[in-house]
Amino acid sequence: MIPDRVRQILSWYESDNPGTLANLRRLIGTGTLADTGKFVILPVDQGFEHGPHRSFAPNPPAFNPHYHFELALEAGCNAYAAPLGFLEAGARTFAGQIPLILKLNNNDSLFSTKNPSQAITASVEHALRLGCAAIGFTIYPGSANSQAQYEQLNGLAEEAKRFGLVVVVWSYPRGEGLSKEGETAIDVAGYAAQIACQLGAHIVKVKPPSEHIEQAEAKKAFEKANIPIRTLADRVRQVVASAFDGRRIVIFSGGPAKDEAAIYEEIRGIRDGGGFGSIIGRNAFQRPKTEALKMLRRIMNIYLGKE
Amino acid sequence: MIPDRVRQILSWYESDNPGTLANLRRLIGTGTLADTGKFVILPVDQGFEHGPHRSFAPNPPAFNPHYHFELALEAGCNAYAAPLGFLEAGARTFAGQIPLILKLNNNDSLFSTKNPSQAITASVEHALRLGCAAIGFTIYPGSANSQAQYEQLNGLAEEAKRFGLVVVVWSYPRGEGLSKEGETAIDVAGYAAQIACQLGAHIVKVKPPSEHIEQAEAKKAFEKANIPIRTLADRVRQVVASAFDGRRIVIFSGGPAKDEAAIYEEIRGIRDGGGFGSIIGRNAFQRPKTEALKMLRRIMNIYLGKE
Amino acid sequence: MIPDRVRQILSWYESDNPGTLANLRRLIGTGTLADTGKFVILPVDQGFEHGPHRSFAPNPPAFNPHYHFELALEAGCNAYAAPLGFLEAGARTFAGQIPLILKLNNNDSLFSTKNPSQAITASVEHALRLGCAAIGFTIYPGSANSQAQYEQLNGLAEEAKRFGLVVVVWSYPRGEGLSKEGETAIDVAGYAAQIACQLGAHIVKVKPPSEHIEQAEAKKAFEKANIPIRTLADRVRQVVASAFDGRRIVIFSGGPAKDEAAIYEEIRGIRDGGGFGSIIGRNAFQRPKTEALKMLRRIMNIYLGKE
Amino acid sequence: MIPDRVRQILSWYESDNPGTLANLRRLIGTGTLADTGKFVILPVDQGFEHGPHRSFAPNPPAFNPHYHFELALEAGCNAYAAPLGFLEAGARTFAGQIPLILKLNNNDSLFSTKNPSQAITASVEHALRLGCAAIGFTIYPGSANSQAQYEQLNGLAEEAKRFGLVVVVWSYPRGEGLSKEGETAIDVAGYAAQIACQLGAHIVKVKPPSEHIEQAEAKKAFEKANIPIRTLADRVRQVVASAFDGRRIVIFSGGPAKDEAAIYEEIRGIRDGGGFGSIIGRNAFQRPKTEALKMLRRIMNIYLGKE
Amino acid sequence: MIPDRVRQILSWYESDNPGTLANLRRLIGTGTLADTGKFVILPVDQGFEHGPHRSFAPNPPAFNPHYHFELALEAGCNAYAAPLGFLEAGARTFAGQIPLILKLNNNDSLFSTKNPSQAITASVEHALRLGCAAIGFTIYPGSANSQAQYEQLNGLAEEAKRFGLVVVVWSYPRGEGLSKEGETAIDVAGYAAQIACQLGAHIVKVKPPSEHIEQAEAKKAFEKANIPIRTLADRVRQVVASAFDGRRIVIFSGGPAKDEAAIYEEIRGIRDGGGFGSIIGRNAFQRPKTEALKMLRRIMNIYLGKE
Repeated sequence: MIPDRVRQILSWYESDNPGTLANLRRLIGTGTLADTGKFVILPVDQGFEHGPHRSFAPNPPAFNPHYHFELALEAGCNAYAAPLGFLEAGARTFAGQIPLILKLNNNDSLFSTKNPSQAITASVEHALRLGCAAIGFTIYPGSANSQAQYEQLNGLAEEAKRFGLVVVVWSYPRGEGLSKEGETAIDVAGYAAQIACQLGAHIVKVKPPSEHIEQAEAKKAFEKANIPIRTLADRVRQVVASAFDGRRIVIFSGGPAKDEAAIYEEIRGIRDGGGFGSIIGRNAFQRPKTEALKMLRRIMNIYLGKE
Repeated sequence: MIPDRVRQILSWYESDNPGTLANLRRLIGTGTLADTGKFVILPVDQGFEHGPHRSFAPNPPAFNPHYHFELALEAGCNAYAAPLGFLEAGARTFAGQIPLILKLNNNDSLFSTKNPSQAITASVEHALRLGCAAIGFTIYPGSANSQAQYEQLNGLAEEAKRFGLVVVVWSYPRGEGLSKEGETAIDVAGYAAQIACQLGAHIVKVKPPSEHIEQAEAKKAFEKANIPIRTLADRVRQVVASAFDGRRIVIFSGGPAKDEAAIYEEIRGIRDGGGFGSIIGRNAFQRPKTEALKMLRRIMNIYLGKE
Repeated sequence: MIPDRVRQILSWYESDNPGTLANLRRLIGTGTLADTGKFVILPVDQGFEHGPHRSFAPNPPAFNPHYHFELALEAGCNAYAAPLGFLEAGARTFAGQIPLILKLNNNDSLFSTKNPSQAITASVEHALRLGCAAIGFTIYPGSANSQAQYEQLNGLAEEAKRFGLVVVVWSYPRGEGLSKEGETAIDVAGYAAQIACQLGAHIVKVKPPSEHIEQAEAKKAFEKANIPIRTLADRVRQVVASAFDGRRIVIFSGGPAKDEAAIYEEIRGIRDGGGFGSIIGRNAFQRPKTEALKMLRRIMNIYLGKE
Repeated sequence: MIPDRVRQILSWYESDNPGTLANLRRLIGTGTLADTGKFVILPVDQGFEHGPHRSFAPNPPAFNPHYHFELALEAGCNAYAAPLGFLEAGARTFAGQIPLILKLNNNDSLFSTKNPSQAITASVEHALRLGCAAIGFTIYPGSANSQAQYEQLNGLAEEAKRFGLVVVVWSYPRGEGLSKEGETAIDVAGYAAQIACQLGAHIVKVKPPSEHIEQAEAKKAFEKANIPIRTLADRVRQVVASAFDGRRIVIFSGGPAKDEAAIYEEIRGIRDGGGFGSIIGRNAFQRPKTEALKMLRRIMNIYLGKE
Repeated sequence: MIPDRVRQILSWYESDNPGTLANLRRLIGTGTLADTGKFVILPVDQGFEHGPHRSFAPNPPAFNPHYHFELALEAGCNAYAAPLGFLEAGARTFAGQIPLILKLNNNDSLFSTKNPSQAITASVEHALRLGCAAIGFTIYPGSANSQAQYEQLNGLAEEAKRFGLVVVVWSYPRGEGLSKEGETAIDVAGYAAQIACQLGAHIVKVKPPSEHIEQAEAKKAFEKANIPIRTLADRVRQVVASAFDGRRIVIFSGGPAKDEAAIYEEIRGIRDGGGFGSIIGRNAFQRPKTEALKMLRRIMNIYLGKE
């Protein structure tokens, strides 16, 4: 029987067809956190985003695409997300063993601009052909190219949903419209979550927000309503509210590799604020596998309320 | 039997198929103002346009997408308009209870430019799948991007009409071609209404016009013909004339939240000038629900000539 | 039986299908000038191009789209040309009463640039659905955007011809490549007519040319061949020659409202130079209807050689 | 029986379908030079490119599109090439009398830029509908827009070949990448021929090359290999080598009108260098017809080796 | 029976259909290095990229497209790669004799820019029609145009794979994002290989990397992990690791013509580092054929471990 919490989450997605709900259910129902409504996802797009040596030299087995499938499986993640090439390289060996999220757009760091965008590097048909449960797509609210990205996402998400896939949006504020500090400001993080949800995302990934407030009009609104934002849990609560009052799944990224204590504290903040989980890349695959597995299990324990 | 006024309004739309006329009839025939030929519509795209906290922190239940369906229903509005995500989040719960307008394009305020545009964030197929009666689309006459927007609207409106949907155009002058004051100038407001009608809109939404006249050639025309523009009713009359001499439905937006007396005075001006109604967003959902309902009922009473 | 002159004109269009020839024949065979091979057409796109008050305040009944259908009918024009909205607003009432030309692109004056273009505001399918005989399209030779416009026209004209419609091109030199004076220069006017014909136009509309010669190389050619350009009739003759030696229909616009004597003199010049007729907008609809009808009848009389 | 030289030329086109070979055979087998493997083609796009008076005022009958069909026929040309309008205006009268080349792109001189392009002004379907044997397309190697042009040609040529048409490419180096002198430099002329052949052209048209060498690296290659380029015949030989060692048909344009002696000398140079023929426009149609016919016959005689 | 090494290589391509695997097997199974898992490929796109005289004047028979088919065949290469025109010119004569790679995009040197791109000059359908085993495509990571190129490749590669073709990517870092020295830096070469693999390439071609490290973050990673990069073999090893830990075929280009000793030394470095082979253009076809054949045989011997 389907647990109440799972039934509740699925009920929020009022316009989706049974195919998409089935894939969403697979994402919820997989791994150590199965059916808890919590998520830990392994994303590995850093080979494309930062280059292979910055990404994999700290733990050389990670050059091999099979490594990441195995890591996600052994750690009991809900899903594994990667660009086309990395999924193609393990698609047959690991077929049906873990839900896959095909990242449909990517950006490298050999060219940079103050108004970043991403190249579309795979299609919905690719995702279906590879047996994926979901597509992933990054948007950069704040960039002069953001409207073009929203339009790309709109088209791809519509196609994905028609064919029963889940849509996961990486909403990363960046570009000329924002200060560096503003990229993780609490108002901007909430805004980024709202935009992704309005664009039809099922699952939204944002960065853990800081206490900074970027926009003057938003500052007034926070102050007038006297909204607490001092702790990470406070701020996560606002991001979750921004995601349709908690009716969309919001997960948080881990950012650059850091020490374990800091990671666990961050996870507790996300959990206590009502966040749905984490997407942990570099902190996982840049550690030796045994360490990574130990760390991911502790993170899952925190989400399970055991730590 | 269909009332004369409704029959008259429908007769203006000489090129539309029965599907579109049926949906237009639904919009006219719904809510407290049913069959009066007057409209009060609830639009909630501010989460996308201004961000979630600026929009919903003043009245936190409004973070929840269901809140707005309920508000529109309880207030007896003719329709509820919102972007994709907000409609998807209530599509099943509120199916068939109130005519829906899917806003097909949107703009956020994390990036701004002197020649604004909007991203296309949903499709006509989305509108059909969600059971909407109409699509909504914003154009910015005066922007260097306006021609591209007209072309987008042309394509989407043609598709919408073919499938029996109504086309609602938000015509908001803005951009390099205009002074700030000119955005609401009486000549520009009339011009904005005319452009939307020429592009095939069934319903046009403009801002209440000011007494300012932006364009020198228009000023000459107003002065030569001795056209009165001192009162809001005078000016609304010119906007209605600009909308094919009253043969297209023109409604007016409410703008930023303000005190109630000012709102009611504005509504009387719109009514007395022959305007077809109002589209009231922030003034409605940023108040506690009971206050909002009271206010919306008084507005409807004004349109009914009871106040 | 089909008159010789009509048969001759139709014979010039060697590549067209019977559907297009039938619509061309309708244009030739309608109104006071029926079957003379002369044309007076009523165009009303000024609401879009210049705004509603500049266009219609001088004669307020003209705010109503039905007014122009009636004016064209009562005056005995060959056809009525307008943008989508204006035709949609009378399509049913006046169905089949007068050949219609749907203007497929338009430009407003709320934004201006030194390299103008026009937005595509309707489709060939719209024209068919509204029962039109022809599409109309404006090009701006001399603008940096002219090549993009030629390509748009190429696609739309091909589609229109395939479905049996006539193609009418407004060829209006404008943009960075030309001086202000050059926009109506005799060499440029001839060039504009030639371009439209090479692009496949059936009917070309240009402005009455001035004596100015814009391009140095053209000046040499005019001087070497000793071509007379002193009178309007002389110059019209050169424009007609430029339109495939008279094997394409060239008509002339009237420009801004002016006094009647000047209008009649211009019409005589066009007639004496072999021009095929006029397209009279503002000079017609900005006058009270009785005056406009009187004036249009005199213009037709001039084309009939009665004045 | 098919002559050996014709069989040889056709054998070079190893990837074409029988439809294209049949049309190529028609081009080879028509007119005074039929089956010699030599070509004289009449092109008349100057009305579009330079304007009607610069082009046709020197010989006014040339304003009439029929004139050029007749000139090409009476002179015994292999083919007649023109833009859409000029071909449409004679398509029925001259159907099947001479192979036609529809020029698919064109450029006017009312706007100029240092990185020129051409507008696409007709389609492959137009060419088929008009009974043409070939499409013509201009590229401007050296222009910042050249890559976009190559892509247009790639698409149109693929479509043309699929439907059995021949592809003729006007390869005219021009734009920011080149000095004025470099536009006809011998290295650039060879490079232009090579690019057209690599893009899949069956027939390439270039300008007669000068002794100038534009690119430093090319200069080294010419000097190291000690390649003679002093006479026009020497240089034509290098252009022919650049066209797949003579396995593609290369013809040469005549350029601006000039005196006859100069023309004949140029033709002899082209012939002696192994060129396949000439495309003669202004030098033909800007002369009175009898003179033009005399001149074209002498040119053909030179190609026949009789002068 | 299929050799173990071939079986192993094919096993890496987990998402490909049998058609693509069959063509990959043809590439592996052809020529002197058949079934060794090593490759020597002849590419001849320099006529397009550098011009005909710079490319072919050093060895004039190379002007003829047949020459290169013959050279590749006689030398026992695994495949011959060229642009559309060169393949069309020998497609029938050499049909089925050697695997062909159709280069789908090309760039000439008559125009240059700091952010280069390539024009798409052929289609997947062309490749199928010409009987090719693979498509070739160049990307320029580091260019402002790189994202557009990735998107082009994404579309073409998906189409190619659907129809059973192999995808070969020339990954050549270049453009505003990189210093001149950085174009062949070891970190950049590895990054270029990674990007191509993530985009779905089956075979990647890069330039032999230098010891330079371009990106500060990459430098830290190389130093921290203490990665040896002193010898070419060391560096090739890192590029191979960057290509999915050796699970994608990486081959290396030869660059400008140089003396034979230098060539052989480079080949040994590639071999010793685990590279899969070479793509040798100018060093092969700019020598007299007997010399070229001798050189290519020695190169193959090195790959076979005989020298």
